[in-house]
Amino acid sequence: MKIARFRAGRRTAFGVVKDDEIIEIRGSIFTRFRLTDNRLPLSEVTLLPPTEPTGIWGPGPNSANHLDTGGQSHPAQSTKPPGRPEPWRKGRNSLTGHGDPIIIPRDSGGEVHCQGEAVAVIGKNCRRVSPADARRYILGYACGNDVCDRTWQREDTTVWRAKGSDTFAPVGPWIETDINPQELELILRLNGEEVQRVNTRDMLFTFAEIVSYLSQQVTLHPGDLVFSGTAAVTSAIKPGDVVEVEIPGIGMLHNPVAAEYDASAA
Amino acid sequence: MKIARFRAGRRTAFGVVKDDEIIEIRGSIFTRFRLTDNRLPLSEVTLLPPTEPTGIWGPGPNSANHLDTGGQSHPAQSTKPPGRPEPWRKGRNSLTGHGDPIIIPRDSGGEVHCQGEAVAVIGKNCRRVSPADARRYILGYACGNDVCDRTWQREDTTVWRAKGSDTFAPVGPWIETDINPQELELILRLNGEEVQRVNTRDMLFTFAEIVSYLSQQVTLHPGDLVFSGTAAVTSAIKPGDVVEVEIPGIGMLHNPVAAEYDASAA
Repeated sequence: MKIARFRAGRRTAFGVVKDDEIIEIRGSIFTRFRLTDNRLPLSEVTLLPPTEPTGIWGPGPNSANHLDTGGQSHPAQSTKPPGRPEPWRKGRNSLTGHGDPIIIPRDSGGEVHCQGEAVAVIGKNCRRVSPADARRYILGYACGNDVCDRTWQREDTTVWRAKGSDTFAPVGPWIETDINPQELELILRLNGEEVQRVNTRDMLFTFAEIVSYLSQQVTLHPGDLVFSGTAAVTSAIKPGDVVEVEIPGIGMLHNPVAAEYDASAA
Repeated sequence: MKIARFRAGRRTAFGVVKDDEIIEIRGSIFTRFRLTDNRLPLSEVTLLPPTEPTGIWGPGPNSANHLDTGGQSHPAQSTKPPGRPEPWRKGRNSLTGHGDPIIIPRDSGGEVHCQGEAVAVIGKNCRRVSPADARRYILGYACGNDVCDRTWQREDTTVWRAKGSDTFAPVGPWIETDINPQELELILRLNGEEVQRVNTRDMLFTFAEIVSYLSQQVTLHPGDLVFSGTAAVTSAIKPGDVVEVEIPGIGMLHNPVAAEYDASAA
Protein backbone atom coordinates (compact mmCIF):
# COMPACT_ATOMS: atom_id res chain seq x y z
CA MET A 1 0.00 0.00 0.00
CA LYS A 2 1.18 3.49 -0.85
CA ILE A 3 0.40 6.17 1.76
CA ALA A 4 0.85 9.81 0.82
CA ARG A 5 0.48 13.11 2.64
CA PHE A 6 -0.94 15.77 0.37
CA ARG A 7 -2.44 19.20 0.10
CA ALA A 8 -5.58 19.85 -1.89
CA GLY A 9 -6.61 23.48 -1.87
CA ARG A 10 -6.01 24.60 1.70
CA ARG A 11 -6.42 21.18 3.27
CA THR A 12 -3.66 18.80 4.28
CA ALA A 13 -4.58 15.13 4.50
CA PHE A 14 -3.31 11.58 4.14
CA GLY A 15 -4.43 9.24 1.40
CA VAL A 16 -3.85 5.88 -0.20
CA VAL A 17 -2.47 6.04 -3.74
CA LYS A 18 -4.06 3.71 -6.32
CA ASP A 19 -3.06 4.10 -9.96
CA ASP A 20 -3.57 7.76 -10.82
CA GLU A 21 -5.78 8.53 -7.85
CA ILE A 22 -5.45 9.29 -4.19
CA ILE A 23 -8.16 8.15 -1.80
CA GLU A 24 -8.34 10.30 1.30
CA ILE A 25 -8.29 8.48 4.63
CA ARG A 26 -9.79 9.23 8.02
CA GLY A 27 -7.83 8.23 11.12
CA SER A 28 -4.10 7.84 11.73
CA ILE A 29 -1.67 6.17 9.36
CA PHE A 30 0.17 4.95 12.48
CA THR A 31 -2.74 3.27 14.25
CA ARG A 32 -5.87 2.65 12.20
CA PHE A 33 -7.71 4.39 9.44
CA ARG A 34 -10.47 3.87 6.91
CA LEU A 35 -10.83 5.00 3.32
CA THR A 36 -13.28 7.82 2.64
CA ASP A 37 -15.30 8.47 -0.50
CA ASN A 38 -13.03 11.39 -1.40
CA ARG A 39 -10.99 10.36 -4.46
CA LEU A 40 -8.77 12.88 -6.20
CA PRO A 41 -6.63 12.64 -9.32
CA LEU A 42 -2.97 12.60 -8.27
CA SER A 43 -2.36 15.40 -10.77
CA GLU A 44 -4.63 17.69 -8.77
CA VAL A 45 -2.93 17.41 -5.39
CA THR A 46 0.43 18.60 -4.08
CA LEU A 47 2.38 15.77 -2.52
CA LEU A 48 4.02 16.74 0.79
CA PRO A 49 6.84 15.09 2.72
CA PRO A 50 5.11 11.89 3.85
CA THR A 51 5.38 12.63 7.59
CA GLU A 52 6.16 15.39 10.08
CA PRO A 53 9.11 13.76 11.86
CA THR A 54 10.53 14.70 15.26
CA GLY A 55 13.85 13.30 14.04
CA ILE A 56 15.61 12.53 10.74
CA TRP A 57 18.60 10.21 10.86
CA GLY A 58 21.49 9.11 8.71
CA PRO A 59 23.53 6.03 9.62
CA GLY A 60 27.04 7.30 8.85
CA PRO A 61 29.11 5.40 6.28
CA ASN A 62 26.99 2.43 5.26
CA SER A 63 28.38 1.04 2.05
CA ALA A 64 31.75 -0.48 1.27
CA ASN A 65 31.99 1.39 -2.03
CA HIS A 66 31.10 4.79 -0.58
CA LEU A 67 33.91 4.65 1.95
CA ASP A 68 36.52 5.86 -0.55
CA THR A 69 34.43 8.89 -1.46
CA GLY A 70 33.71 9.50 2.20
CA GLY A 71 37.36 9.28 3.06
CA GLN A 72 38.25 11.94 0.53
CA SER A 73 35.52 14.35 1.45
CA HIS A 74 35.68 14.21 5.23
CA PRO A 75 38.96 13.81 7.09
CA ALA A 76 37.23 12.35 10.15
CA GLN A 77 35.98 9.37 8.14
CA SER A 78 38.29 6.45 7.68
CA THR A 79 38.22 4.07 4.75
CA LYS A 80 38.02 1.09 7.10
CA PRO A 81 34.52 -0.42 7.33
CA PRO A 82 32.91 0.83 10.55
CA GLY A 83 32.06 -1.62 13.33
CA ARG A 84 28.77 0.16 14.07
CA PRO A 85 26.61 2.92 12.65
CA GLU A 86 27.78 6.48 13.34
CA PRO A 87 24.37 8.20 13.33
CA TRP A 88 23.88 11.88 12.61
CA ARG A 89 20.79 14.07 12.43
CA LYS A 90 19.31 16.02 9.58
CA GLY A 91 16.92 18.78 10.64
CA ARG A 92 13.18 19.05 10.20
CA ASN A 93 13.97 22.31 8.39
CA SER A 94 15.79 20.37 5.69
CA LEU A 95 12.81 18.16 4.87
CA THR A 96 11.14 18.92 1.55
CA GLY A 97 8.67 17.12 -0.68
CA HIS A 98 8.29 15.64 -4.14
CA GLY A 99 8.42 18.36 -6.77
CA ASP A 100 9.82 21.00 -4.43
CA PRO A 101 13.15 22.60 -5.28
CA ILE A 102 16.46 21.76 -3.65
CA ILE A 103 17.76 25.26 -2.99
CA ILE A 104 21.52 25.83 -3.17
CA PRO A 105 22.41 28.43 -0.50
CA ARG A 106 23.98 31.49 -2.05
CA ASP A 107 27.03 31.17 0.22
CA SER A 108 27.48 27.46 -0.50
CA GLY A 109 30.99 26.28 -1.26
CA GLY A 110 29.59 25.31 -4.66
CA GLU A 111 30.21 21.61 -4.30
CA VAL A 112 26.72 20.29 -3.46
CA HIS A 113 26.11 16.60 -4.09
CA CYS A 114 22.93 14.59 -4.36
CA GLN A 115 22.78 11.09 -2.90
CA GLY A 116 19.90 8.77 -3.69
CA GLU A 117 18.80 6.73 -0.69
CA ALA A 118 15.92 4.68 0.63
CA VAL A 119 14.26 6.01 3.78
CA ALA A 120 12.55 4.01 6.53
CA VAL A 121 9.49 5.58 8.17
CA ILE A 122 9.06 4.72 11.84
CA GLY A 123 5.54 3.54 12.65
CA LYS A 124 5.51 3.20 16.45
CA ASN A 125 7.35 4.51 19.48
CA CYS A 126 10.45 2.42 19.69
CA ARG A 127 13.13 2.14 22.38
CA ARG A 128 15.67 -0.64 22.99
CA VAL A 129 14.34 -2.89 20.25
CA SER A 130 16.47 -5.71 18.91
CA PRO A 131 17.38 -5.93 15.21
CA ALA A 132 15.01 -8.91 14.97
CA ASP A 133 12.11 -6.86 16.34
CA ALA A 134 12.95 -3.54 14.68
CA ARG A 135 11.12 -4.24 11.44
CA ARG A 136 7.79 -4.31 13.29
CA TYR A 137 8.36 -0.67 14.24
CA ILE A 138 8.85 0.46 10.64
CA LEU A 139 5.71 1.49 8.77
CA GLY A 140 7.26 1.54 5.31
CA TYR A 141 9.82 3.02 2.96
CA ALA A 142 10.17 6.06 0.73
CA CYS A 143 12.71 7.53 -1.68
CA GLY A 144 15.10 10.12 -0.27
CA ASN A 145 17.96 12.35 -1.25
CA ASP A 146 20.71 13.09 1.25
CA VAL A 147 21.83 16.41 -0.25
CA CYS A 148 25.26 17.39 1.06
CA ASP A 149 27.53 20.40 0.66
CA ARG A 150 31.00 18.81 0.51
CA THR A 151 32.83 22.06 1.27
CA TRP A 152 30.91 22.57 4.52
CA GLN A 153 31.28 18.88 5.31
CA ARG A 154 35.06 19.30 5.17
CA GLU A 155 35.22 22.66 6.95
CA ASP A 156 32.75 22.26 9.82
CA THR A 157 32.97 20.13 12.96
CA THR A 158 29.42 18.83 12.44
CA VAL A 159 27.13 18.35 9.42
CA TRP A 160 24.62 20.94 10.74
CA ARG A 161 24.58 22.81 7.42
CA ALA A 162 26.48 20.41 5.13
CA LYS A 163 23.54 18.01 5.39
CA GLY A 164 21.07 20.10 7.39
CA SER A 165 20.48 23.25 5.34
CA ASP A 166 16.90 24.03 4.36
CA THR A 167 15.63 21.71 1.55
CA PHE A 168 18.62 19.32 1.86
CA ALA A 169 16.35 16.35 2.71
CA PRO A 170 13.85 15.63 -0.08
CA VAL A 171 11.70 12.62 0.85
CA GLY A 172 8.78 11.14 -1.08
CA PRO A 173 6.72 10.72 -3.12
CA TRP A 174 4.95 8.48 -0.56
CA ILE A 175 5.41 5.55 1.83
CA GLU A 176 5.25 1.99 0.47
CA THR A 177 4.32 -0.38 3.28
CA ASP A 178 4.68 -3.76 1.54
CA ILE A 179 8.20 -4.16 0.27
CA ASN A 180 11.44 -5.92 1.19
CA PRO A 181 13.69 -3.05 2.33
CA GLN A 182 16.95 -4.91 1.76
CA GLU A 183 16.30 -5.71 -1.88
CA LEU A 184 15.52 -2.28 -3.25
CA GLU A 185 17.07 -1.26 -6.53
CA LEU A 186 17.71 2.50 -6.58
CA ILE A 187 18.38 4.61 -9.64
CA LEU A 188 19.48 8.23 -9.41
CA ARG A 189 19.04 10.34 -12.54
CA LEU A 190 20.50 13.78 -13.07
CA ASN A 191 18.81 15.65 -15.92
CA GLY A 192 17.47 12.35 -17.20
CA GLU A 193 20.82 10.60 -17.21
CA GLU A 194 21.47 7.70 -14.86
CA VAL A 195 24.34 8.59 -12.52
CA GLN A 196 23.90 6.07 -9.71
CA ARG A 197 22.45 2.55 -9.53
CA VAL A 198 22.68 0.72 -6.27
CA ASN A 199 20.84 -1.89 -4.25
CA THR A 200 19.96 -1.81 -0.55
CA ARG A 201 21.25 -5.36 -0.22
CA ASP A 202 24.71 -3.72 -0.18
CA MET A 203 24.00 -1.72 2.98
CA LEU A 204 26.62 -2.57 5.64
CA PHE A 205 23.94 -2.14 8.31
CA THR A 206 20.35 -3.04 7.45
CA PHE A 207 17.47 -0.71 8.30
CA ALA A 208 16.56 -3.05 11.15
CA GLU A 209 20.09 -2.87 12.52
CA ILE A 210 20.23 0.95 12.27
CA VAL A 211 16.83 1.38 13.92
CA SER A 212 17.80 -1.04 16.66
CA TYR A 213 21.10 0.76 17.23
CA LEU A 214 19.48 4.21 17.37
CA SER A 215 16.77 2.95 19.70
CA GLN A 216 19.30 1.96 22.37
CA GLN A 217 19.64 5.63 23.39
CA VAL A 218 16.91 7.44 21.49
CA THR A 219 13.16 6.93 21.52
CA LEU A 220 12.08 6.97 17.89
CA HIS A 221 8.60 8.34 17.24
CA PRO A 222 5.97 7.61 14.59
CA GLY A 223 6.93 9.49 11.44
CA ASP A 224 10.64 9.70 12.23
CA LEU A 225 12.80 9.05 9.18
CA VAL A 226 15.94 6.93 8.85
CA PHE A 227 18.03 7.25 5.69
CA SER A 228 19.86 4.20 4.33
CA GLY A 229 23.19 5.91 3.71
CA THR A 230 24.43 6.20 0.18
CA ALA A 231 26.54 3.97 -2.01
CA ALA A 232 28.96 4.44 -4.88
CA VAL A 233 29.94 7.79 -6.34
CA THR A 234 27.74 10.82 -5.75
CA SER A 235 27.09 13.65 -8.20
CA ALA A 236 27.41 17.43 -8.00
CA ILE A 237 24.24 19.42 -8.69
CA LYS A 238 23.70 23.04 -9.73
CA PRO A 239 20.72 25.34 -10.24
CA GLY A 240 18.68 24.28 -13.25
CA ASP A 241 19.34 20.57 -12.75
CA VAL A 242 16.59 18.02 -12.17
CA VAL A 243 17.19 15.12 -9.79
CA GLU A 244 15.15 11.91 -9.77
CA VAL A 245 15.46 9.14 -7.21
CA GLU A 246 13.56 6.08 -8.39
CA ILE A 247 13.03 2.90 -6.41
CA PRO A 248 10.97 0.43 -8.46
CA GLY A 249 8.13 -0.79 -6.26
CA ILE A 250 8.02 2.49 -4.35
CA GLY A 251 8.02 5.31 -6.90
CA MET A 252 10.00 8.25 -8.12
CA LEU A 253 11.03 11.34 -6.15
CA HIS A 254 11.51 14.31 -8.45
CA ASN A 255 13.17 17.59 -7.42
CA PRO A 256 14.42 20.53 -9.46
CA VAL A 257 17.50 22.39 -8.22
CA ALA A 258 17.33 26.16 -7.77
CA ALA A 259 19.58 28.97 -6.62
CA GLU A 260 18.61 30.76 -3.44
CA TYR A 261 16.79 33.98 -4.23
CA ASP A 262 18.76 36.91 -2.92
CA ALA A 263 16.25 39.54 -1.91
CA SER A 264 18.97 42.03 -1.03
CA ALA A 265 20.48 41.81 -4.53
CA ALA A 266 17.15 42.13 -6.38
CA MET B 1 6.65 37.87 31.99
CA LYS B 2 7.04 34.17 32.73
CA ILE B 3 5.32 31.79 30.29
CA ALA B 4 5.01 28.12 31.21
CA ARG B 5 3.65 25.05 29.51
CA PHE B 6 1.91 22.77 31.97
CA ARG B 7 -0.32 19.79 32.49
CA ALA B 8 -3.26 19.89 34.86
CA GLY B 9 -5.12 16.62 35.03
CA ARG B 10 -5.24 15.43 31.42
CA ARG B 11 -5.02 18.86 29.86
CA THR B 12 -1.91 20.55 28.48
CA ALA B 13 -1.95 24.35 28.32
CA PHE B 14 0.17 27.47 28.46
CA GLY B 15 -0.02 29.96 31.28
CA VAL B 16 1.55 33.05 32.77
CA VAL B 17 3.28 32.52 36.10
CA LYS B 18 2.63 35.11 38.82
CA ASP B 19 3.95 34.45 42.31
CA ASP B 20 2.69 31.00 43.28
CA GLU B 21 0.00 30.83 40.63
CA ILE B 22 -0.30 30.07 36.96
CA ILE B 23 -2.94 31.87 34.92
CA GLU B 24 -4.02 29.88 31.90
CA ILE B 25 -3.94 31.69 28.56
CA ARG B 26 -6.00 31.38 25.39
CA GLY B 27 -4.25 31.94 22.05
CA SER B 28 -0.65 31.42 20.97
CA ILE B 29 2.40 32.40 22.99
CA PHE B 30 4.07 33.19 19.65
CA THR B 31 1.46 35.57 18.23
CA ARG B 32 -1.16 36.86 20.66
CA PHE B 33 -3.01 35.58 23.66
CA ARG B 34 -5.21 36.71 26.51
CA LEU B 35 -5.38 35.65 30.12
CA THR B 36 -8.33 33.50 31.15
CA ASP B 37 -10.03 33.29 34.52
CA ASN B 38 -8.46 29.91 35.16
CA ARG B 39 -5.87 30.37 37.93
CA LEU B 40 -4.13 27.36 39.42
CA PRO B 41 -1.62 27.04 42.25
CA LEU B 42 1.80 26.20 40.75
CA SER B 43 2.02 23.32 43.20
CA GLU B 44 -0.98 21.65 41.54
CA VAL B 45 0.33 21.57 37.95
CA THR B 46 3.10 19.62 36.25
CA LEU B 47 5.48 21.93 34.43
CA LEU B 48 6.40 20.64 30.96
CA PRO B 49 9.28 21.60 28.67
CA PRO B 50 8.24 25.14 27.70
CA THR B 51 7.85 24.42 23.96
CA GLU B 52 7.64 21.58 21.45
CA PRO B 53 10.65 22.49 19.29
CA THR B 54 11.37 21.29 15.75
CA GLY B 55 15.05 21.82 16.53
CA ILE B 56 17.33 22.10 19.57
CA TRP B 57 20.75 23.63 19.04
CA GLY B 58 24.06 23.98 20.79
CA PRO B 59 26.67 26.49 19.61
CA GLY B 60 29.83 24.41 19.94
CA PRO B 61 32.61 25.72 22.18
CA ASN B 62 31.39 29.10 23.43
CA SER B 63 33.47 30.06 26.43
CA ALA B 64 37.17 30.71 26.74
CA ASN B 65 37.39 28.79 30.01
CA HIS B 66 35.52 25.71 28.71
CA LEU B 67 37.95 25.22 25.85
CA ASP B 68 40.48 23.34 27.99
CA THR B 69 37.86 20.88 29.20
CA GLY B 70 36.50 20.54 25.68
CA GLY B 71 39.95 19.91 24.32
CA GLN B 72 40.52 17.07 26.74
CA SER B 73 37.19 15.39 26.22
CA HIS B 74 36.91 15.55 22.44
CA PRO B 75 39.90 15.15 20.16
CA ALA B 76 38.20 17.07 17.33
CA GLN B 77 37.99 20.22 19.45
CA SER B 78 40.97 22.51 19.56
CA THR B 79 41.84 24.76 22.48
CA LYS B 80 42.11 27.78 20.17
CA PRO B 81 39.09 30.11 20.36
CA PRO B 82 36.81 29.32 17.41
CA GLY B 83 36.21 31.95 14.72
CA ARG B 84 32.55 31.02 14.42
CA PRO B 85 30.00 28.83 16.16
CA GLU B 86 30.19 25.11 15.37
CA PRO B 87 26.50 24.25 15.85
CA TRP B 88 25.23 20.80 16.67
CA ARG B 89 21.75 19.40 17.27
CA LYS B 90 20.20 17.82 20.32
CA GLY B 91 17.11 15.73 19.58
CA ARG B 92 13.50 16.34 20.49
CA ASN B 93 13.70 12.96 22.22
CA SER B 94 16.25 14.37 24.68
CA LEU B 95 14.01 17.22 25.84
CA THR B 96 12.65 16.83 29.34
CA GLY B 97 10.98 19.14 31.82
CA HIS B 98 11.39 20.61 35.27
CA GLY B 99 11.18 17.89 37.90
CA ASP B 100 11.61 15.02 35.45
CA PRO B 101 14.55 12.67 35.90
CA ILE B 102 17.73 12.72 33.87
CA ILE B 103 18.07 9.03 33.11
CA ILE B 104 21.57 7.58 32.84
CA PRO B 105 21.47 4.89 30.12
CA ARG B 106 22.44 1.50 31.49
CA ASP B 107 25.16 1.13 28.84
CA SER B 108 26.58 4.61 29.47
CA GLY B 109 30.33 4.89 29.77
CA GLY B 110 29.63 6.14 33.30
CA GLU B 111 31.09 9.59 32.83
CA VAL B 112 27.93 11.69 32.39
CA HIS B 113 28.30 15.41 33.04
CA CYS B 114 25.75 18.13 33.67
CA GLN B 115 26.29 21.57 32.20
CA GLY B 116 24.14 24.50 33.30
CA GLU B 117 23.21 26.81 30.45
CA ALA B 118 20.77 29.50 29.46
CA VAL B 119 18.45 28.64 26.55
CA ALA B 120 16.96 31.04 24.01
CA VAL B 121 13.43 30.28 22.79
CA ILE B 122 12.76 31.28 19.18
CA GLY B 123 9.55 33.28 18.79
CA LYS B 124 9.14 33.67 15.03
CA ASN B 125 10.22 32.01 11.82
CA CYS B 126 13.69 33.28 11.20
CA ARG B 127 16.00 32.98 8.19
CA ARG B 128 19.04 35.07 7.21
CA VAL B 129 18.63 37.51 10.06
CA SER B 130 21.52 39.75 11.09
CA PRO B 131 22.91 39.69 14.65
CA ALA B 132 21.37 43.14 15.13
CA ASP B 133 17.90 41.86 14.16
CA ALA B 134 18.13 38.42 15.76
CA ARG B 135 16.94 39.48 19.19
CA ARG B 136 13.52 40.38 17.79
CA TYR B 137 13.09 36.71 16.82
CA ILE B 138 13.73 35.44 20.34
CA LEU B 139 10.70 35.16 22.60
CA GLY B 140 12.60 34.70 25.84
CA TYR B 141 14.99 32.60 27.87
CA ALA B 142 14.89 29.53 30.10
CA CYS B 143 17.29 27.45 32.17
CA GLY B 144 18.79 24.39 30.51
CA ASN B 145 21.12 21.53 31.17
CA ASP B 146 23.28 20.19 28.35
CA VAL B 147 23.75 16.69 29.74
CA CYS B 148 26.65 14.93 28.05
CA ASP B 149 28.17 11.46 28.20
CA ARG B 150 31.90 12.18 27.90
CA THR B 151 32.80 8.60 26.97
CA TRP B 152 30.43 8.61 24.00
CA GLN B 153 31.56 12.12 23.10
CA ARG B 154 35.11 10.80 22.79
CA GLU B 155 34.25 7.53 21.03
CA ASP B 156 31.62 8.56 18.49
CA THR B 157 31.96 10.62 15.33
CA THR B 158 28.91 12.72 16.26
CA VAL B 159 27.18 13.68 19.52
CA TRP B 160 23.99 11.80 18.57
CA ARG B 161 23.91 9.94 21.90
CA ALA B 162 26.61 11.78 23.89
CA LYS B 163 24.31 14.81 23.98
CA GLY B 164 21.20 13.41 22.32
CA SER B 165 20.13 10.46 24.48
CA ASP B 166 16.62 10.54 25.90
CA THR B 167 16.30 13.04 28.81
CA PHE B 168 19.70 14.67 28.10
CA ALA B 169 18.12 18.10 27.51
CA PRO B 170 16.23 19.34 30.59
CA VAL B 171 14.77 22.80 29.88
CA GLY B 172 12.56 24.91 32.12
CA PRO B 173 10.93 25.79 34.40
CA TRP B 174 9.43 28.43 32.05
CA ILE B 175 10.29 31.19 29.58
CA GLU B 176 11.17 34.65 30.90
CA THR B 177 10.48 37.22 28.17
CA ASP B 178 11.87 40.38 29.81
CA ILE B 179 15.50 39.93 30.64
CA ASN B 180 18.93 40.87 29.29
CA PRO B 181 20.26 37.56 27.92
CA GLN B 182 23.91 38.58 28.05
CA GLU B 183 23.93 39.44 31.74
CA LEU B 184 22.53 36.28 33.25
CA GLU B 185 24.18 34.85 36.31
CA LEU B 186 23.91 31.07 36.35
CA ILE B 187 24.43 28.82 39.33
CA LEU B 188 24.59 25.05 39.02
CA ARG B 189 24.05 23.04 42.20
CA LEU B 190 24.68 19.36 42.60
CA ASN B 191 22.97 17.90 45.67
CA GLY B 192 22.62 21.41 47.04
CA GLU B 193 26.28 22.31 46.62
CA GLU B 194 27.31 25.00 44.16
CA VAL B 195 29.58 23.49 41.50
CA GLN B 196 29.42 26.08 38.74
CA ARG B 197 28.82 29.86 38.69
CA VAL B 198 29.08 31.63 35.38
CA ASN B 199 27.69 34.63 33.57
CA THR B 200 26.36 34.80 30.02
CA ARG B 201 28.42 37.95 29.46
CA ASP B 202 31.35 35.54 29.01
CA MET B 203 29.79 33.80 26.01
CA LEU B 204 32.19 34.05 23.04
CA PHE B 205 29.18 34.32 20.72
CA THR B 206 26.04 36.03 22.02
CA PHE B 207 22.61 34.47 21.57
CA ALA B 208 21.94 37.02 18.81
CA GLU B 209 25.12 36.00 17.00
CA ILE B 210 24.38 32.27 17.31
CA VAL B 211 20.79 32.69 16.11
CA SER B 212 21.96 34.86 13.21
CA TYR B 213 24.64 32.33 12.27
CA LEU B 214 22.24 29.36 12.39
CA SER B 215 19.64 31.27 10.39
CA GLN B 216 21.97 31.67 7.42
CA GLN B 217 21.31 28.05 6.41
CA VAL B 218 18.48 26.90 8.66
CA THR B 219 14.99 28.30 9.09
CA LEU B 220 14.38 28.46 12.84
CA HIS B 221 10.78 27.96 13.95
CA PRO B 222 8.77 29.25 16.88
CA GLY B 223 9.62 27.15 19.91
CA ASP B 224 13.04 26.06 18.67
CA LEU B 225 15.66 26.12 21.41
CA VAL B 226 19.23 27.43 21.33
CA PHE B 227 21.55 26.56 24.21
CA SER B 228 24.22 29.05 25.28
CA GLY B 229 27.10 26.61 25.50
CA THR B 230 28.67 25.98 28.85
CA ALA B 231 31.49 27.58 30.74
CA ALA B 232 34.07 26.50 33.28
CA VAL B 233 34.40 23.01 34.66
CA THR B 234 31.47 20.60 34.40
CA SER B 235 30.48 17.96 36.94
CA ALA B 236 29.85 14.24 36.77
CA ILE B 237 26.40 13.06 37.87
CA LYS B 238 25.15 9.67 39.03
CA PRO B 239 21.80 8.13 39.93
CA GLY B 240 20.45 9.58 43.16
CA ASP B 241 21.90 13.05 42.53
CA VAL B 242 19.80 16.18 42.26
CA VAL B 243 20.78 18.90 39.78
CA GLU B 244 19.58 22.50 39.97
CA VAL B 245 20.24 25.15 37.35
CA GLU B 246 19.29 28.56 38.71
CA ILE B 247 19.28 31.81 36.77
CA PRO B 248 18.15 34.68 39.02
CA GLY B 249 15.43 36.58 37.18
CA ILE B 250 14.31 33.43 35.34
CA GLY B 251 13.94 30.68 37.91
CA MET B 252 15.29 27.31 38.90
CA LEU B 253 15.31 24.09 36.88
CA HIS B 254 15.35 21.05 39.14
CA ASN B 255 16.02 17.49 37.96
CA PRO B 256 16.78 14.32 39.87
CA VAL B 257 19.15 11.79 38.29
CA ALA B 258 18.03 8.19 37.90
CA ALA B 259 19.37 4.94 36.54
CA GLU B 260 17.61 3.46 33.51
CA TYR B 261 15.21 0.78 34.59
CA ASP B 262 16.22 -2.51 33.07
CA ALA B 263 13.03 -4.43 32.41
CA SER B 264 14.94 -7.48 31.20
CA ALA B 265 16.87 -7.71 34.48
CA ALA B 266 13.82 -7.26 36.70
